Amino acid sequence: MARKFNIAVVGATGLVGSELVDALALRRFPVESLRLFASLNTAGEKAPFLDDEIKVEPISGDFGQGRDIVFFTAHPMLSRDLAEDAVKAGAVVIDASRVFRSLPDVPVVVPELNPEDLAGVRGGRRIVASPSAAAVAVALVAAPLHKKFGLKRIVAVTTYGTASAGRAGLAEHQSQTIGLFNQQEEMEVERFTRQCAFNLFPRVGEFADEETEVERDFESDLPRLLKAPVRVAATAVQAPYFCGTGTALNLEFEQAPTADEAREALRSATGVLVIDDPGQDEYPDTVESMSRSEVLVGRIRRDPSHDQALQLWVSADNLRKGSAVNMVQIAETLIKDWE
Amino acid sequence: MARKFNIAVVGATGLVGSELVDALALRRFPVESLRLFASLNTAGEKAPFLDDEIKVEPISGDFGQGRDIVFFTAHPMLSRDLAEDAVKAGAVVIDASRVFRSLPDVPVVVPELNPEDLAGVRGGRRIVASPSAAAVAVALVAAPLHKKFGLKRIVAVTTYGTASAGRAGLAEHQSQTIGLFNQQEEMEVERFTRQCAFNLFPRVGEFADEETEVERDFESDLPRLLKAPVRVAATAVQAPYFCGTGTALNLEFEQAPTADEAREALRSATGVLVIDDPGQDEYPDTVESMSRSEVLVGRIRRDPSHDQALQLWVSADNLRKGSAVNMVQIAETLIKDWE
Repeated sequence: MARKFNIAVVGATGLVGSELVDALALRRFPVESLRLFASLNTAGEKAPFLDDEIKVEPISGDFGQGRDIVFFTAHPMLSRDLAEDAVKAGAVVIDASRVFRSLPDVPVVVPELNPEDLAGVRGGRRIVASPSAAAVAVALVAAPLHKKFGLKRIVAVTTYGTASAGRAGLAEHQSQTIGLFNQQEEMEVERFTRQCAFNLFPRVGEFADEETEVERDFESDLPRLLKAPVRVAATAVQAPYFCGTGTALNLEFEQAPTADEAREALRSATGVLVIDDPGQDEYPDTVESMSRSEVLVGRIRRDPSHDQALQLWVSADNLRKGSAVNMVQIAETLIKDWE
Repeated sequence: MARKFNIAVVGATGLVGSELVDALALRRFPVESLRLFASLNTAGEKAPFLDDEIKVEPISGDFGQGRDIVFFTAHPMLSRDLAEDAVKAGAVVIDASRVFRSLPDVPVVVPELNPEDLAGVRGGRRIVASPSAAAVAVALVAAPLHKKFGLKRIVAVTTYGTASAGRAGLAEHQSQTIGLFNQQEEMEVERFTRQCAFNLFPRVGEFADEETEVERDFESDLPRLLKAPVRVAATAVQAPYFCGTGTALNLEFEQAPTADEAREALRSATGVLVIDDPGQDEYPDTVESMSRSEVLVGRIRRDPSHDQALQLWVSADNLRKGSAVNMVQIAETLIKDWE
């Protein structure tokens, strides 16, 4: 009988953590045992898993003991403080945060694109990073085009829903929306530093100098995932919807394909669904991306400002394929040769 | 005593029309008499103007008689059908729609940028077009940079609130939002062809082949306003807030300025307000742009993907400076030498 694995999830009650527990069940990951950890606020809750309910534990010193794989989906601080402990306890860590992404001995992986980078993990640093959510979506679209037509430059403008600030962000968005409709005078502003409901502004996450960390992560993840010196510029925009990302992509090529050639290449790409017929009002939107596991792409067209560029639109579920599902796929790839 | 003018507004009860009536009063335009016209649905309403109330009339055959200036802010169909009638009746037409923008003998004007193009209007075709709202905002930012540093290419991604579909768009957005919070099963979908509340998608207005008319207008207005063969690519995105536009701009120059040099040039530009200090959480947002008559610009930074490019963010009120206020400013410029 095939081997089963002992798993832990740190941050199991968060948005990505609970999607990850769902994905383990839905994708029938061979789970021997599953321990779920969260902060004191939510520890004690019960999480459904297959036909069972698992009690969420507060994080304790032995959280990594006897675990084959520990998923980190909590605050980056927890990844920084505890990932090495999990490795010392014998586990492989799969991390959702930006903490390890810039280290040369930590692979940044989208299994459809660079599964080979997982080869040395178990004998090496034993940490794998999942890329930033928008980078996963854009890489899945850019990679097949790069392979065929040679990408030189990516300019991306990505809108993020209020799930970018986790459950607290969603709650603040909801309460502000209800407050504005009821003409309440006071507005709770905490997670976004300014009104998020019915507002749109060019900041997601913390600033690192003139760019945000979210923009910088996108710019450094893409060349690693494409394994090419593609130059990347990102703008991250906070928008007043709940989940999902929408990216306006401008792609500059060595030799640009026609829109039809690009559509053709994307139709046969893994993890990508082309929805592109403006005459029939067909193009991706964020609500639709929530009900799909693929990355949606449409509005594929020549760039009237550059002879070797294409413009297109990408919508994706940043919690699922962007994070949780990608992390489970990393685990699925890792265990293929794990006796 | 200075001359006063006989004015008419066609579409006076719409979003742009009522802003225009407000702007005539606020800017103390020398009004001798003001007639307001609208469709049968809203004719009969009363609109406040200075200390008066003006009854809105249904559009009749004599709407242009004795008018010096007729503003068109209604559906493009009305501009197409009635603008020439107003001209024949002796008026100058200032039009908000796209109907006349592509004609070589109709100037497309932002008075801060190309007032000289108004010189021949009264002795010529007697029609002036106000540019598309996002083009007004971006041109005000791009022009001073072009003048100093030589612009070659503009890639713009602009989000539009639901005011892009007029009062009916705002109403649909509100009713969908309330319905979703009350878990109503039925959703009224009419103006946007799909759910607009808490959704984001790459379509504003009608498609003209692979681009929308809104995108095409932006691409053709910018070179006319800058009077330069700048190449332009636009993406227009519908977002779930009410008013205003947010534009992520990528500007490619002959010789790119540093971010500081660009900031400096924009600080002394007319109609532009620089809000740009990420360390203090200062950058433009759409809610703030609603309370300002200037175009707001921030997030000015070098483009990591191109040595001669800058990235920046523009927020603007598409109803006011984008349309109504720009139209009144066109009228103010026209009457300067009008005896």
